[in-house]
Formats: sequence, C-alpha cells, structure tokens
Amino acid sequence: MPHISLDQNLPGMRSLLAYRPDIAGPLGQLANTLLRSNNGLTMAERELIGTYVSYLNNCFYCQHSHGAIAACYLDENYDLVNHVIRDYANAGISDKLKALLSVAASVQKGGKSVTDNQIAIAKAAGATDNDVHDTVLIAAAFCMFNRYVDGLATNTPTDLASYPPRAKQVVEGGYGGLVPVVK
Amino acid sequence: MPHISLDQNLPGMRSLLAYRPDIAGPLGQLANTLLRSNNGLTMAERELIGTYVSYLNNCFYCQHSHGAIAACYLDENYDLVNHVIRDYANAGISDKLKALLSVAASVQKGGKSVTDNQIAIAKAAGATDNDVHDTVLIAAAFCMFNRYVDGLATNTPTDLASYPPRAKQVVEGGYGGLVPVVK
Repeated sequence: MPHISLDQNLPGMRSLLAYRPDIAGPLGQLANTLLRSNNGLTMAERELIGTYVSYLNNCFYCQHSHGAIAACYLDENYDLVNHVIRDYANAGISDKLKALLSVAASVQKGGKSVTDNQIAIAKAAGATDNDVHDTVLIAAAFCMFNRYVDGLATNTPTDLASYPPRAKQVVEGGYGGLVPVVK
Repeated sequence: MPHISLDQNLPGMRSLLAYRPDIAGPLGQLANTLLRSNNGLTMAERELIGTYVSYLNNCFYCQHSHGAIAACYLDENYDLVNHVIRDYANAGISDKLKALLSVAASVQKGGKSVTDNQIAIAKAAGATDNDVHDTVLIAAAFCMFNRYVDGLATNTPTDLASYPPRAKQVVEGGYGGLVPVVK
C-alpha cells in the first residue's frame, strides 16, 4: 500500500506524476534533457546507466521500466541489459561505458566516492567532460527517482510483461508524453 | 579540483548551473516548486529537511548553503539549524517536523527504509499526504543535488561567511534568480 493516496490504477512514478502535476513538469523536463539525447552518450547508454543505478538501489519499478526502455533502443537485447546489470565489466559494451558505469556505481554510494582515478580511466577510454557530467547527474537523478518511487511505497507491477508497452511509449514520445500538461 | 572544466570563480551547484544551462532550467524549477512554498510545510521547514539530508550525505556545500537559507527564514537562528542537524529529536521544532525528519533520514538511506510506522507517527502528529509527499521528494532531491555537487568534486568554499550573502539572494528572489535563463 502506498504511504499516501495515489491512483491505484497507475504504477510507480506514473502515480506520482498524476498526484502532483506541478512536480511532474520539472521532473519530466529533467528526464528528457538527461535521457533523450544522443549528444555524446547515446540514449541506450543513458538508460543503461539509469537501469544499473536503479538495480543498485534495489528499485524494482525503475529497474524494469528503464531496463525495458534500454532494451527498446538495443533491438530488444534484454540479455545485454541483464549482463550490464549483473556484471558490466564482462558485458559487450565499450570500455568507455564500462568506466562510466564504475563512476555511476560510486555516485550511487555517495558523491565523495568518485575518485580521480576513475575519472582518469573514463577519460583515457574517450569520455568527454560532458560524458562524465551526464553520467554523474544521471546516476544522481536515479538516486532521487528510486527514493521517490520506493519512499512513498508506490504500486509496483510484478508482471514483467507490463513494462515493454510503456517503454515503447517513452521511446516513441519521450518522457513528456507521460507527464500531465502543466498550465 | 573538479573532475570536469568548471568556472573556478563559482562555487558548488552554481558552477554546474553555469556549465549546463539546459539542465539548470529544470533543476531550478524543481527547487522552486519543492522549496519555495508555504503550502503545508513552511519554507523554513523545507530548507531544514534539505539541510539535514545534506548533512547526512556529508555534502558540506549543500549543508551550509541550505542551512544559511533556513536560518534566513528563522530570524538568523543558526543555533536552531545546528540543533536540528545534530539532534532534531530534542530541538525546538514541532512533533510533526520531528516525525518528518525521521522519514527524511530513512529516505536518505534508501526508499525502502521508510516504514509504515514512521508514516503513521507523522500523520498522527498532523502531517498530511502532501506533507509526507513533499518530505520524501525533498529528501530524495537532496540525495541527487548532494551527489551532483560532490560527484563532480565542485569547488566548496570553506569560509562559512561566504554562504549567508547567497542565502539572502535565494530568500529574496528564489532559485530562479540563480539559474541562467534558458530560451
């Protein structure tokens, strides 16, 4: 049961966006700016970072929502998504993304956990300042999203088949399409 | 040294907002919506929650920035701000705020740490659904802000006298005044 009165027909974050449209606006804009860009990191890479941090934070709803979005960008390659979550160092991804996932894991623990050495490794693998920036903020933002969704004990669908249809909507229309219009 | 090329004349979050104006817009709107309202929780209470979470996350810049803003709303009562941070259970604040600070401390650990019993105590002390919602999201948002500021190793002024002038600007003009205009 959610800790506050939310529409029980809506899952996770969607129930919160419906509850507080005034908050949904800035959160939707933040998600679109951070996750709906191929400038530097691809949209697939951004979603993989968010999915991995959600896994580390044990947020079932966000992990499966964003895992399905990442898979959508990766020709439905759920094996790759799951490999990244469980053991990214041996997954079929670039050395740059591996280094940035290491940074994201540190951010999940706390901002001060990120080391100069981790950043040096990421930059040696080709990460730009913007890639480092986006990785840190995506990881930090999922530390917010995950706590928002689970801290209010929102409704979490356990049927994994319910996530891909929502993922397709995001891939086609962005996060704005899930956010009520704020006047 | 910051992990990326930031304007060294600007401290903490301000250097990040200048670096990425496209991100500054949604973050400023989120801060204004969450922190610049007396609907339910007062602005002072909202800033106390943010200050306390920043303390728990060991984010010197955010703790002192938002502690100074809270003090501004509380007739410069820094003793109260420091008492809340160190031992809120015995500070001169309402039982409702004490119960909500307990919820915020759980959110800082992780969303699933919030218990039904904590929420029941907060509601018995007069917290509405919106108060609980805002507490959880403020705590979650500071888990993002703190990680963003420290995860990129931004410049952190150690001179505590540098914080009150910035706090006064926020109290007078809101967070929008600190955010570059995005067209």
